[in-house]
Amino acid sequence: MTSAVPVVPAFGDAPAPPVSSAGGAGSAGSASPAGPTRPAGEVRTAGPAGIAGTIGRQGSSSPLDEQEAAGILERARASVDPELRRAVESLPGPMRRIARYHFGWEHADGTPATGNAGKAIRPALVLAAASALGGPQSVAVSAAAAVELVHNFTLLHDDVMDRDTTRRHRPTAWAVFGDAGAILAGDALEALAQRMLAEDPHPAAAAAAVRLADCVIELCAGQHADTAMEKRGPNEVTLDEVLAMAEAKTGALLGCACALGGLYAGASEERVEALDAFGREAGLAFQLIDDVIGIWGDPRRTGKPAGADLMARKKSLPVVAALASGTPAAAELAELYGLPYEAGELERTVLAVERAGGRDWAQSQAADRMSRAMQELSRAVPDPEAAGGLLALAEFVTRRSN
Amino acid sequence: MTSAVPVVPAFGDAPAPPVSSAGGAGSAGSASPAGPTRPAGEVRTAGPAGIAGTIGRQGSSSPLDEQEAAGILERARASVDPELRRAVESLPGPMRRIARYHFGWEHADGTPATGNAGKAIRPALVLAAASALGGPQSVAVSAAAAVELVHNFTLLHDDVMDRDTTRRHRPTAWAVFGDAGAILAGDALEALAQRMLAEDPHPAAAAAAVRLADCVIELCAGQHADTAMEKRGPNEVTLDEVLAMAEAKTGALLGCACALGGLYAGASEERVEALDAFGREAGLAFQLIDDVIGIWGDPRRTGKPAGADLMARKKSLPVVAALASGTPAAAELAELYGLPYEAGELERTVLAVERAGGRDWAQSQAADRMSRAMQELSRAVPDPEAAGGLLALAEFVTRRSN
Repeated sequence: MTSAVPVVPAFGDAPAPPVSSAGGAGSAGSASPAGPTRPAGEVRTAGPAGIAGTIGRQGSSSPLDEQEAAGILERARASVDPELRRAVESLPGPMRRIARYHFGWEHADGTPATGNAGKAIRPALVLAAASALGGPQSVAVSAAAAVELVHNFTLLHDDVMDRDTTRRHRPTAWAVFGDAGAILAGDALEALAQRMLAEDPHPAAAAAAVRLADCVIELCAGQHADTAMEKRGPNEVTLDEVLAMAEAKTGALLGCACALGGLYAGASEERVEALDAFGREAGLAFQLIDDVIGIWGDPRRTGKPAGADLMARKKSLPVVAALASGTPAAAELAELYGLPYEAGELERTVLAVERAGGRDWAQSQAADRMSRAMQELSRAVPDPEAAGGLLALAEFVTRRSN
Repeated sequence: MTSAVPVVPAFGDAPAPPVSSAGGAGSAGSASPAGPTRPAGEVRTAGPAGIAGTIGRQGSSSPLDEQEAAGILERARASVDPELRRAVESLPGPMRRIARYHFGWEHADGTPATGNAGKAIRPALVLAAASALGGPQSVAVSAAAAVELVHNFTLLHDDVMDRDTTRRHRPTAWAVFGDAGAILAGDALEALAQRMLAEDPHPAAAAAAVRLADCVIELCAGQHADTAMEKRGPNEVTLDEVLAMAEAKTGALLGCACALGGLYAGASEERVEALDAFGREAGLAFQLIDDVIGIWGDPRRTGKPAGADLMARKKSLPVVAALASGTPAAAELAELYGLPYEAGELERTVLAVERAGGRDWAQSQAADRMSRAMQELSRAVPDPEAAGGLLALAEFVTRRSN
């Protein structure tokens, strides 16, 4: 399977890494990583089935492969983009310009750019969930666009708070337009998302708006936990905390996307909740993978400098797992993390995370989360045929595509 | 009239100043100020009728006085506060704590404080507009709370961008909880506002949500224009620009508050638009007054250090008017504004704005805007008796109450 090479990352705006098929039964917050060491920098290539493949296909016999997922994403992007552009074009001048830049539709100087707005995973989940629950996809296009607007509002704000200077291989909006510009453009996108649902005559629109607003609040709490944790010492953050943070920061919106699709298809409350849980678990798997990529990924693919998270002493999931491992490597890592990064320390830091089992833990946790996601999916959509689209999307980001 | 002394300011979180009864017919963006000079620091006391009194009472014979407005505000605060507190209490821990602090319900250390959340002018306008259009006030309580949440979300974010360290006589939220805390609490309040409308079963709720979202976008554009103008030279900003900015930044939400009240009362589109225009014009009047207060007001009442706007070289309305006056004082002011503030310059700066006619222009513009507001009000609510509440609120902030 060597179809479309994802230039732009999927969840968390980083492409999916390979994930070991080992593990998969670890428990949520209590897993204590201390796996075998592996040379730093090695990126393993998983088979075509990815994580989900290793834990069964829900009995589905349809050939779900990357091409299917790529097709779903492409169709989602094609459905949602016009709605998204219409919304952004309705903004007043300066807000519009910053949003266009952020979405990759314009360069910093205002000249047109070939769009590079991410893989549209979240909108695709909305549409796939609606479809899986028997609704026509077209009915949920506004909801899909609203979810994408919320995602991008949080990216704009998070980049300001985290002082991240690169996003999607380009300078972040605040780096180009200043903090105020990025904060205000984010505020405006949040408002646009809610306006889109408020204007939608669909009977599920109000319930979707409530759910999306709750999700925004959870995203804020997750980001707040993240920034607060970064201020604490390397041994003052627990694995449970960092997992809860990741669920709020990443899982919540993926869950919300799936739930909104279900709401628009008229699904029962129980199924909507199962869809939410599916998205949350898958989101956590992808965050784990994203963090692995942040350390061992190829910067040409991630769009971020190699090891940037480690240099910034970021308490990513593999790092906190490594710190919590009680190994000699954990002590070394804690010592490194106790001081600001110094040139030349990167390889040693990467190795410490690896030797303390951070990488293996993250990969095994990711597999475990995907397994739970599949269970939730079968609750939400018992018919494997109907669940195919959601499954293909979930598998998509757990595979290497080149 | 020496009723309740407003400890907390009304619009723009500063109490209303006295306004000269002179002027009142100046045109919007083209007024060229060059009035007579007046000693700096003098705060004149207007008669009980304030601006609105000087331009007629729409033939109403009911005795509208401060007590009436104070009563309306008190009842609005009493109706809206429980809704507001319920919403804030639903936030996750850290977001809730920052919001409680911002609303004045808690001290920075988390201990309870006697609420000091502002005068509730915006919620009062929502309820008064609903009432003026024949709706029961109770029907619009959610909308009133949503407007107040939006107002406070913008305060949280604006303080971050403007690096303002004091609000309502206390350190701003970012100064206590950091930028990320204030940005995220603001994001969460924006989401709460929209959730409140999305949960409201009233048939006008969706239209109100669209209007409120549009208003948020306009507020963002206004704040963006403000921050962008602050980076330009003293003679690079026109009076038209700064008036347009003030309308977007201050007028839009007051207009939206009135319009939402109308929507909830089932008013016609035309009346809703007239209510919006009433609020916008009144909002501009109050911004003019707020800027006057920022220069000539009593810091014990404004909660801000005297002349802080001038020291920060802020291009407030009286300052830009003064700069545009073509007087020798304008040249002196431009020279002062061309360089960072130096200790001891305050009195000279205040005098330059005054001599260049900035104060008189602002007061005459405020009177003019109030006159337009009254015209819009009579379009929206032809019966003066029914318009009494809105009129009382508009008058309230144009008077001294001590």
